[in-house]
Amino acid sequence: MSNHVGRQSMSFKSFPTIIARSSVVGPKEKEGPFGDLFDESFQNLYCERKSWEKAELRLAKEAVRLALLKAELKEEDLDFFLGGDLLNQIIIASFTASSLGVPFFGIFGACSTYVEGLILGSILVETGYAKRVMALASSHYATAQRQYRTPTEYGVMYPAYKHWTVSGAGAAIMEQDGIGPKITCATAGKIVDFGVKDAFDMGSVMAPAAADTILQHFQDLEKGPWAYDLVVTGDLGRYGREILLELLMERGVDLKDKLQDCGLLIYSSGQKVGAGGSGCGCSAVVLNTYLMQEMERGNIKRLLLVGTGALLNPVSVMQGETIPGIAHAVSIENI
Amino acid sequence: MSNHVGRQSMSFKSFPTIIARSSVVGPKEKEGPFGDLFDESFQNLYCERKSWEKAELRLAKEAVRLALLKAELKEEDLDFFLGGDLLNQIIIASFTASSLGVPFFGIFGACSTYVEGLILGSILVETGYAKRVMALASSHYATAQRQYRTPTEYGVMYPAYKHWTVSGAGAAIMEQDGIGPKITCATAGKIVDFGVKDAFDMGSVMAPAAADTILQHFQDLEKGPWAYDLVVTGDLGRYGREILLELLMERGVDLKDKLQDCGLLIYSSGQKVGAGGSGCGCSAVVLNTYLMQEMERGNIKRLLLVGTGALLNPVSVMQGETIPGIAHAVSIENI
Repeated sequence: MSNHVGRQSMSFKSFPTIIARSSVVGPKEKEGPFGDLFDESFQNLYCERKSWEKAELRLAKEAVRLALLKAELKEEDLDFFLGGDLLNQIIIASFTASSLGVPFFGIFGACSTYVEGLILGSILVETGYAKRVMALASSHYATAQRQYRTPTEYGVMYPAYKHWTVSGAGAAIMEQDGIGPKITCATAGKIVDFGVKDAFDMGSVMAPAAADTILQHFQDLEKGPWAYDLVVTGDLGRYGREILLELLMERGVDLKDKLQDCGLLIYSSGQKVGAGGSGCGCSAVVLNTYLMQEMERGNIKRLLLVGTGALLNPVSVMQGETIPGIAHAVSIENI
Repeated sequence: MSNHVGRQSMSFKSFPTIIARSSVVGPKEKEGPFGDLFDESFQNLYCERKSWEKAELRLAKEAVRLALLKAELKEEDLDFFLGGDLLNQIIIASFTASSLGVPFFGIFGACSTYVEGLILGSILVETGYAKRVMALASSHYATAQRQYRTPTEYGVMYPAYKHWTVSGAGAAIMEQDGIGPKITCATAGKIVDFGVKDAFDMGSVMAPAAADTILQHFQDLEKGPWAYDLVVTGDLGRYGREILLELLMERGVDLKDKLQDCGLLIYSSGQKVGAGGSGCGCSAVVLNTYLMQEMERGNIKRLLLVGTGALLNPVSVMQGETIPGIAHAVSIENI
């Protein structure tokens, strides 16, 4: 099999390995079902800093520090750092890179950023362009609210189908031939635009992109639902998940018993989070805790993680543009 | 030689080839010395659209259309599309990708974005993860002014060392073994922060990063100024170029006779542009016209293009943060 498979997919022969990962979150995530699994958490959203942005930067820097610590590595052991976040000019990733001193590729795929980093990182280590890379993604409830909607201090009411941006950062260190879960193949997403203009309705924006990428993944790699124990989307939430299941069923693919969503997993049913969690950090910290733990325990052997992103900014929405969606998928296996 | 060379560099064995490139600009760039070389230009900054953002999107979409046309390819002939721009959430690249239907990796390195795309694109085609990729970068004077400074309509006065954002988009199509200039090696930049806090003083922010990357490139690949006919930075401008020359001289490297800057090349001395041109589109359209033409004519055989970026956003500047710089270098040769 060549490296590029089918229309949009990649197959990895040497199986890039996630040798270490970290997760740092805010208080609401700590209260959720994975509270005990996170490496570190903060009791309030300021994370002992003076602004929301500095708080998110702290989440990101701690995630980087802890991933290096767990891998018993220093920053100079990393060849490249791939990072992104939801803030304008991916300023959190840039400032984190600034403190790291490692060659930096800035990436952005909205909430699919972490998976974009895992894919590009896999290519770099698979091909010997790097011995070891780190991927990072972060998000923060209050920085996202202020930038995309209204500052939290305004106390604005939102529709029930709005998502709750996860305050959290996750980092992964990948190398060739290490010990840990392997990345076996991946599918890069093309943009799918279903004409949604409601900036709160992220599930409807991203579900068609997720369907497109999952179907393409199965087609390119001659796989089906049978190939995975679990397919996990990034942050479709309650309504997006339903739409995705319907879109897949229309194409004859039944994922009902195998589909979960990081945005639905991260909070418990009693927490008021609208349609569920979202943000770059959501899939990063759920993968790096619950999902990886289940893989280590052998409860999940073959996982397809589908990072989902909504490509909007406040100006594009105000100018009446539709919101395109994107989804990148990465296959993580215990082999 | 392995693929990863030294601390931050990559060497390409199959020499990814730029088989087609395009350039689309606004009126001020058309009036400059390369006016006749651009593929297309618009007589005013609105580019026959109703908003600045839609105008920039038109530049980007035209650049993509023209690159495909020149290569006699269709969008389905591209395996991946790598794109970025200066607007929040790289919305121009995302919307361009939306119209393309090609798997999309969003990238951001401020004004170094085009070179970041050329590097990642080179890796993808070199390793067989793609047969063919397109890289795109765009910027627009009025969208950048509104987002980073003040809307042009305010008529605010700026210091003489401020840069003038180039309105332009450039796209390149790269493949293995085609006909055209070859990408032989590259150096990914780490972030360098000299503590500058003045958001108009981009030359001072980026020059130290450019120096760091150029020195690292020479060290990693055992090269020196002798290895290149020309070293061209992205958008250091008048003052940044002087700082870079001094920083290099301090390290014993004399580039005085070989160093040019796209931001200084793109406008003529009579045009009022402060310290020179800047923006993602600046290095993209200068590489894709003048520099590539000189390579085709044999006047330049070995070119080092150093994309330079300042990693700020308006919030980070208002919060008193320093502005980190980054520079990525790519070696383009006629071989």
